Amino acid sequence: MNKQFKFSEQFHITRHLLKWTLLVMPLALIVGSLVALFLWLLDKATLFRWHHDWLLWLLPVAGIAIHFLYKLWGKNSEGGNNLIMDEIHEPGGGVPWRMAPLVILSTVITHLFGGSAGREGTAVQVGGSIAAGAGKLLKLSPADIRIMLMAGIAAGFGAVFGTPITGAIFALEVLAIGRIKYDALLPCLMASLFADIVVGTWGIHHTHYHILLREIPPSILSFLHFDLLLLLKVIIAGIAFGLASNFFATLTHGIKHQSNKWIKQKWLIPVIGGCTVIALTYAVGTSDYLGLGVNSSNPGGNSIVNAFNIGGATSFSWFWKLLFTSITLGMGFKGGEVTPLFFIGAALGNTLAVLLGVPIDLLAGLGFIAVFAGATNTPLACTLMGVELFGGEYILYYAVSCFTAYYFSGHTGIYTSQRIAVGKQ
Amino acid sequence: MNKQFKFSEQFHITRHLLKWTLLVMPLALIVGSLVALFLWLLDKATLFRWHHDWLLWLLPVAGIAIHFLYKLWGKNSEGGNNLIMDEIHEPGGGVPWRMAPLVILSTVITHLFGGSAGREGTAVQVGGSIAAGAGKLLKLSPADIRIMLMAGIAAGFGAVFGTPITGAIFALEVLAIGRIKYDALLPCLMASLFADIVVGTWGIHHTHYHILLREIPPSILSFLHFDLLLLLKVIIAGIAFGLASNFFATLTHGIKHQSNKWIKQKWLIPVIGGCTVIALTYAVGTSDYLGLGVNSSNPGGNSIVNAFNIGGATSFSWFWKLLFTSITLGMGFKGGEVTPLFFIGAALGNTLAVLLGVPIDLLAGLGFIAVFAGATNTPLACTLMGVELFGGEYILYYAVSCFTAYYFSGHTGIYTSQRIAVGKQ
Repeated sequence: MNKQFKFSEQFHITRHLLKWTLLVMPLALIVGSLVALFLWLLDKATLFRWHHDWLLWLLPVAGIAIHFLYKLWGKNSEGGNNLIMDEIHEPGGGVPWRMAPLVILSTVITHLFGGSAGREGTAVQVGGSIAAGAGKLLKLSPADIRIMLMAGIAAGFGAVFGTPITGAIFALEVLAIGRIKYDALLPCLMASLFADIVVGTWGIHHTHYHILLREIPPSILSFLHFDLLLLLKVIIAGIAFGLASNFFATLTHGIKHQSNKWIKQKWLIPVIGGCTVIALTYAVGTSDYLGLGVNSSNPGGNSIVNAFNIGGATSFSWFWKLLFTSITLGMGFKGGEVTPLFFIGAALGNTLAVLLGVPIDLLAGLGFIAVFAGATNTPLACTLMGVELFGGEYILYYAVSCFTAYYFSGHTGIYTSQRIAVGKQ
Repeated sequence: MNKQFKFSEQFHITRHLLKWTLLVMPLALIVGSLVALFLWLLDKATLFRWHHDWLLWLLPVAGIAIHFLYKLWGKNSEGGNNLIMDEIHEPGGGVPWRMAPLVILSTVITHLFGGSAGREGTAVQVGGSIAAGAGKLLKLSPADIRIMLMAGIAAGFGAVFGTPITGAIFALEVLAIGRIKYDALLPCLMASLFADIVVGTWGIHHTHYHILLREIPPSILSFLHFDLLLLLKVIIAGIAFGLASNFFATLTHGIKHQSNKWIKQKWLIPVIGGCTVIALTYAVGTSDYLGLGVNSSNPGGNSIVNAFNIGGATSFSWFWKLLFTSITLGMGFKGGEVTPLFFIGAALGNTLAVLLGVPIDLLAGLGFIAVFAGATNTPLACTLMGVELFGGEYILYYAVSCFTAYYFSGHTGIYTSQRIAVGKQ
């Protein structure tokens, strides 16, 4: 800690910021534009599938296509998010730029044919591979490439969800459990912000979610600025959200591990995965668990948006979405995990709200962020996401549910390259 | 990163949480109650001084009293916040429990006789010393005492401002520049929350601040969810806020260092300090820069609350408050730095708002949190404080102004025991 003002220090800091502004602006422009393209394609693919149910029957074939896409042109792109995280921890092999087009294409294919997946993984991989490419092109030092990669993650994440602050903090928080380092704080914030601006400029809009309850009825404890009983219920729900995160991560890793162990012909894995998704769709009797799940093809169906209302999710919607997604992503299809985690959380929140007597939109919103917090071990980013998506009024409940879910998810998570910096007990 | 669910892990985490709930509850009860008493006394002292202007003439005598209070009974209490932080970094000498009553008494004396100071330092020292006392009494391990101390800081901070989430994150973030470690995440949140509840239960209420602008007039850029020009202005203001933080920290350290160097009779330091404050008060012609500064004794005067309105601060209000506080705290009086930092920031924001053409309440609010963020190097806690105090609508501007101020304050800060974990360039 310095005690004196040093002019040279201010000078260095200013230079550092100018340098990163110049590096990050074009990165955010490219990543933001690619994410905008991706979101547009995803929207078209989802609408097209809604109007052509038979596409689901081709899911196994789509899986083979994705398998050979990666096998023939992928190099080490298969590593995905984990490859980018490894490269930040220990610069080495590099992230190939071809990861960006490959992951966009394969994710759109996954969604077009009805795989259950998300989009943040895709956006993060686009961000990371463009950042790595730019770093190589500009001959940056390994330390600077590290910061570029983190800025790339922030740009991808911030752009895909329209949440710039969450994007920046997510990029810093996701690398290791239990620690945030600020080495790339401002580059990440700038990248995330600019990329979000770029997506907006391309005319792409994000879904708005609302927690509408304005008043919690006054109780004998209303001298407090919050409701103590509600807080206890939120803690109980937080434990359930954390266990759901753990279940999702464990199941996805388990399916991946077992199918690689038992199915010797690798291209058969997505075929079997695709067939299982088809069989499950007919067994459950709804296509609501296919695709992103933000909206449903029938207005009253199971979806993230509907989970904020009474009857918008059945008691086991969360479980079905969890199963569909684990199979899709564990058996060779592409896409992110986060939007399905939003679905699982919001649907579980919907169910728990009825059991616990809590306003449904509040608990759906808390599940939305908390299951994600538990599965990625990013409780601070998710608390901020609550503020960015739902407003600041319930920040206390956001923090309590995300932190509780974070603890109860244990040292598991969806990113195998995430390190453990500070354990949870 | 584990890939499998381990029942034993969940069991350990649950046990860890139960243990800390039991340890933290009584801590929060005591700290919250003491903070409530302190806030009540502070309020009485401020009102009494407003009605008895002549008390200011006794400020030098009050300074002598504080000096001998610490000299005779203080042991190492003089170390204050820095002693607590050192103890967390390297457990050793211990924090004496007597720090709590001493700091409450000496802060109330400082305020009663018109010193310009805050209250967070006092609350944090109450939290830390009670935590250390409890740790010793319960014969906790050094690792557990560390967590108790952090929970004590969180309890004190959360209780004194009514911002539980900010309290928890502040306790984790303040220890080292550029890093947050989550080792005490949930104990800190619980301590902060319970202590806040306790303060509320004692009937103590916190000041409400409002950023009222609801609509920013639509511009050609209104396809974005924010205003790009406003964002640029916020960055410029953030640089000014960061430099003000640096100026405050440098000046306070400088005054302390120089007066210890040149004034051999230590008890003379607060006498000279007190006389300087009296002389300045008459030179400036207002008593608005004495005490906390949340409100002013005359309704239209300079104060934090008024700085949110047009004409609520003069162009140099921020400078005067900075000078009054640096002298008060640099020359042996007691209290925190944070409320004066709020004043400096809000007044500077008020002045800059006119120059930059930005809504006054918005820039006053941003200054409020950003100067504090720069001076304590806690940009995340301050972003969250913005949400807790002013609502979530402007979180983007909170983050941008706090992060910018954090960078431009350099590696200086008000806490000399804060370490540098990750540098800013």
